[in-house]
Amino acid sequence: MTDLMVIVLAAGEGTRMKSSHPKVLHKVAGRPIVGHVLQAARDAGAKTLAMVTGPGHQSVRDAMAKIAPETRFFEQLERRGTAHAASMARDAFSAATGYVAIVYGDHPLLSGADFRRVTERLDAGLDAAILGFEPRDPTGYGRFITDGDKLLAIREHKDATEAEREIGLCNACILAFRAEVFKDLIDKVGTNNAQGEYYLTDLVELANAAGHTVGYAVAPEDNVMGVNDRSQLARAEATFQALRREDFMKAGVTLHDPQSVYFSYDTEIAQDVEIEPNVVFGPGVKIESGAVIHAFSHIEGAHIASGVSVGPFARLRPGTDLAENAKVGNFVEVKNAKVGQGAKISHLSYIGDAEIGGGSNIGAGTITCNYDGYNKAMTIIGENAFIGSNSALVAPVEIGDGAYVASGSVITEPVATDALGIGRARQINKPGYGKALNDRFKALKNKT
Amino acid sequence: MTDLMVIVLAAGEGTRMKSSHPKVLHKVAGRPIVGHVLQAARDAGAKTLAMVTGPGHQSVRDAMAKIAPETRFFEQLERRGTAHAASMARDAFSAATGYVAIVYGDHPLLSGADFRRVTERLDAGLDAAILGFEPRDPTGYGRFITDGDKLLAIREHKDATEAEREIGLCNACILAFRAEVFKDLIDKVGTNNAQGEYYLTDLVELANAAGHTVGYAVAPEDNVMGVNDRSQLARAEATFQALRREDFMKAGVTLHDPQSVYFSYDTEIAQDVEIEPNVVFGPGVKIESGAVIHAFSHIEGAHIASGVSVGPFARLRPGTDLAENAKVGNFVEVKNAKVGQGAKISHLSYIGDAEIGGGSNIGAGTITCNYDGYNKAMTIIGENAFIGSNSALVAPVEIGDGAYVASGSVITEPVATDALGIGRARQINKPGYGKALNDRFKALKNKT
Amino acid sequence: MTDLMVIVLAAGEGTRMKSSHPKVLHKVAGRPIVGHVLQAARDAGAKTLAMVTGPGHQSVRDAMAKIAPETRFFEQLERRGTAHAASMARDAFSAATGYVAIVYGDHPLLSGADFRRVTERLDAGLDAAILGFEPRDPTGYGRFITDGDKLLAIREHKDATEAEREIGLCNACILAFRAEVFKDLIDKVGTNNAQGEYYLTDLVELANAAGHTVGYAVAPEDNVMGVNDRSQLARAEATFQALRREDFMKAGVTLHDPQSVYFSYDTEIAQDVEIEPNVVFGPGVKIESGAVIHAFSHIEGAHIASGVSVGPFARLRPGTDLAENAKVGNFVEVKNAKVGQGAKISHLSYIGDAEIGGGSNIGAGTITCNYDGYNKAMTIIGENAFIGSNSALVAPVEIGDGAYVASGSVITEPVATDALGIGRARQINKPGYGKALNDRFKALKNKT
Repeated sequence: MTDLMVIVLAAGEGTRMKSSHPKVLHKVAGRPIVGHVLQAARDAGAKTLAMVTGPGHQSVRDAMAKIAPETRFFEQLERRGTAHAASMARDAFSAATGYVAIVYGDHPLLSGADFRRVTERLDAGLDAAILGFEPRDPTGYGRFITDGDKLLAIREHKDATEAEREIGLCNACILAFRAEVFKDLIDKVGTNNAQGEYYLTDLVELANAAGHTVGYAVAPEDNVMGVNDRSQLARAEATFQALRREDFMKAGVTLHDPQSVYFSYDTEIAQDVEIEPNVVFGPGVKIESGAVIHAFSHIEGAHIASGVSVGPFARLRPGTDLAENAKVGNFVEVKNAKVGQGAKISHLSYIGDAEIGGGSNIGAGTITCNYDGYNKAMTIIGENAFIGSNSALVAPVEIGDGAYVASGSVITEPVATDALGIGRARQINKPGYGKALNDRFKALKNKT
Repeated sequence: MTDLMVIVLAAGEGTRMKSSHPKVLHKVAGRPIVGHVLQAARDAGAKTLAMVTGPGHQSVRDAMAKIAPETRFFEQLERRGTAHAASMARDAFSAATGYVAIVYGDHPLLSGADFRRVTERLDAGLDAAILGFEPRDPTGYGRFITDGDKLLAIREHKDATEAEREIGLCNACILAFRAEVFKDLIDKVGTNNAQGEYYLTDLVELANAAGHTVGYAVAPEDNVMGVNDRSQLARAEATFQALRREDFMKAGVTLHDPQSVYFSYDTEIAQDVEIEPNVVFGPGVKIESGAVIHAFSHIEGAHIASGVSVGPFARLRPGTDLAENAKVGNFVEVKNAKVGQGAKISHLSYIGDAEIGGGSNIGAGTITCNYDGYNKAMTIIGENAFIGSNSALVAPVEIGDGAYVASGSVITEPVATDALGIGRARQINKPGYGKALNDRFKALKNKT
Repeated sequence: MTDLMVIVLAAGEGTRMKSSHPKVLHKVAGRPIVGHVLQAARDAGAKTLAMVTGPGHQSVRDAMAKIAPETRFFEQLERRGTAHAASMARDAFSAATGYVAIVYGDHPLLSGADFRRVTERLDAGLDAAILGFEPRDPTGYGRFITDGDKLLAIREHKDATEAEREIGLCNACILAFRAEVFKDLIDKVGTNNAQGEYYLTDLVELANAAGHTVGYAVAPEDNVMGVNDRSQLARAEATFQALRREDFMKAGVTLHDPQSVYFSYDTEIAQDVEIEPNVVFGPGVKIESGAVIHAFSHIEGAHIASGVSVGPFARLRPGTDLAENAKVGNFVEVKNAKVGQGAKISHLSYIGDAEIGGGSNIGAGTITCNYDGYNKAMTIIGENAFIGSNSALVAPVEIGDGAYVASGSVITEPVATDALGIGRARQINKPGYGKALNDRFKALKNKT
């Protein structure tokens, strides 16, 4: 495969987002817009990645470093057009030998396949290939001036004649060139246009003029949706979700109401998982076959094994690992915890920084006290233990296999295997005193 | 009314479901697909029910036994076509005297009225009547070859000519016959078709050839939607829900956002009930006039009387019975419990296996400890009792009328009428020791 | 500006609502239908407001008194038509000098701008101006008989000829007149029509006959949607929400799934607030820039400052005030409470009637015991305090700055600055007794 270098243009201001954050960091399916673009470039096999950001956009660099640490970053200090932006990456592309593709960074639904649409045209012998699409409404887009399968020029909307504006095939978001062609032409782009900017799209006419062969490929409109405001962001999210929902249903996942289930970019779900309405997945979730996710569950960073039942009203936070047939029920939060086979945390509990052995039962209202204001500590519960309801387990603490914690206990010391731990006051009853209290409180009320 | 026997064909593999469960057991509105079909047959007055399942589908038998225990089951060991499947039920239909209707078991939106569309044609004198529909896209369906209101033949898509494929009226899912006609013809079906299978639809041509009168009736497409994959399952669910939501609104139920409320097949709701967004109903719910169900509630197996307020964030499980003007508030789970008139469980509680008298107030964080790891036990609370917040009531236990339980108590012994029960340690303050702890924990943090 | 008086007709029975409550009190976006109409009239600058209600509709008066206390109310005892209804307000309009506008009270999506559409026509010199619209389906609506920009008559559907029924421009819901014209003509309306009722719309022909100039204005159909049944109520709600969602996105608010977020009529949200799916806003919410509202949150009567994180699964009730960077996490309810800068209530807590100082940490399972069955009392927590998990704070009680409450404590006495408060029993372990209990309970189970 010919080496592919991708330059991501991510310097746009995004003023229509009305945001103090760079546009390309707004998220679709839990990942920054430009992160989707970077990932698509990687999926297409790009070995070299460069990104041109706006001035001072350290937050973009930081976010991308997690997704593609090999990316080199460049700043565009003045906004003088897309060709000017691309030229900022000179230190990266000057050494390129195979293909160079420039992609707009605000297109979150791009996939590797969209890059391949154009690189395949280069593989077939062309010197340049540009990705186009046929928008429902072409207003505002650069039009493709074609002659058969040759692309002669891209005319920006503002510079287009009435006749050219009738053209339906428009510039999408990827321009791919043989490296030497790109390097030869990028500095020849001028500013002779309505905006007085250096247009990347002018490379098409320049390439033709220099005798190079320029073609195009066409992508579905959904793939090449750009995001310029929050409505478009919501639409990109909706499109991503609609595709992912169909994919999962095809793969044998039941979604009672597909529209009410929200996946992350990396959610993995096996066949015969059932998902009730109103479930939100954050990043890092993997669910094995036969699990059931009940309504109103919020899940991120969790591994859920076969036969597990989650929710309704469950929150699983990062580091949750639920073994086969475990159960996490309503109003339960689990964080950084391994829950053993068949163990049950059925109601109103917080299990954080813990290990729970298989077969153990955690009573309603159990709280692991894992935090002292500064440090986190672990709660270790053995197998087949029984934690009575409304208990507080003050970490670090260990409860042995088969141990029993009495309801309402505060457990600060280890409980050995098969032992009973009890930490609660003995009940006292005061006959008639309930009525007296009621009378007193009622009298107070009447006064106020 | 002429006796009606219905044979449900439920032996299909459903490979496109990508499931280890039989297709017809996947659920729409909380009931298996084929359960809807059985219920529709019963609603049409069918006295005799037979079902043909795939080999070893004991799970189908088990599920159906709850819905229509009178159903007789037959297995189709080899897949040799729908007529072959129907013939498996010979022991059941050999004694039939009135009408025999064969229905495909994967059509969850059928109702009794759809059966009556064809049995009414038999009542009117025809010997056979087949249910048809006009699909938006007829590809794949058997076409009705008609002459006026006579049905001459049903041509399977694969066997149809180009001209026949232009026909819009198609075979739906119910074929009804006079019993003697059916019994006479079922063994005459051959395998002279593209698939080499015994087609049930061949009965139409055979009946005509034998001089019988064959007609048809037409059902709306929504009613006769078949389910072959999980997308279709989701669509059937959505159609069911859309119809039910309209029905309830017509009947005087307020749905703030109809699309976010999910009913079960058997949900009963009276006039002037108000339902906020995001409510999920499981089976067995009945709500009386004037109740309000707040957002994010998950309700099954519950009776909710007039004036009750449920949620937001409430979970009612089977056996919940809320009397007039009771209140179940946020992050509260109720299971197998009677809650008296005007009693309040406003926050963060688990009430399981309990009776709460009218006018009682259950404080935030109250837990009924109803389970010892093996057995469930009851908590009985009288009228106008006050259970202080964060109490644990260890069942079996009784709290009398007008009794008062102090906040934070663990109650293991009965509290008599008008008595005070208190089971908590006395507070000790250690001046300056809070700061010392903070300093210690902070120092530990700095070390790690 | 010419004085504007508005008469709201709110006497309709609304039988199609199937409700025991007056139709106009059903709510859209948390405000009664007729409250939206009143507010629109006020927004248009109406100085004098009158409302005609059905007999005995005290509940309408009570609800409106909160929205526009200056409104004068009149009852229509017999239902004899809209002109008859308007004439009930004679005591109010007899003194009117500027414009009188009559509006139907069941049109919740009206805004001040819709009133101005017709009053601007009066400003331009007309004697009367009626608001029209072009419905997708005009069946049932009064048709505008026009001559250029003159309105000659409004023909009720039942009285219209076939030709007149072809007219697409129909009567919406606001009729505006110069006061003297209205007062002169209102008593001249007769009952010569199919229903035998006094039609307000007859004023158009009467005005023309008397030589007055009558014109019209046209409003978008969405604005003038009337509500007659619960499906229309749901549609009005959906339309309101769709508009509001777009407004917020334009203003720089991120909505992951706009369709799953429900605003109240008065919700205020600043730029760069992020809202996950499934959030319900009740009245009285204001959110500052940079806050994040996680999924499954239910929020009313709350002020949320910059940088605050709410949810998932949070419930904020009236009187909640969260300062900068505070956090309210999952399964937490807050009511009538000030939460200081950076304070955290991360899990499973009820904080009611409280003040929490900046930097304090409230452990999981903390409950403020603010209610004794009759009275509410305050819990005051200082700055940088640490409340250990599963504690019960029995109000009235104060916890000082830097104080530490041990996990599982019941706190009934004040804890001084920097002190430790502890109120829990000491743990006892009984070796082997856990196994004994398990054996006993298992044996009991086998017996039952």
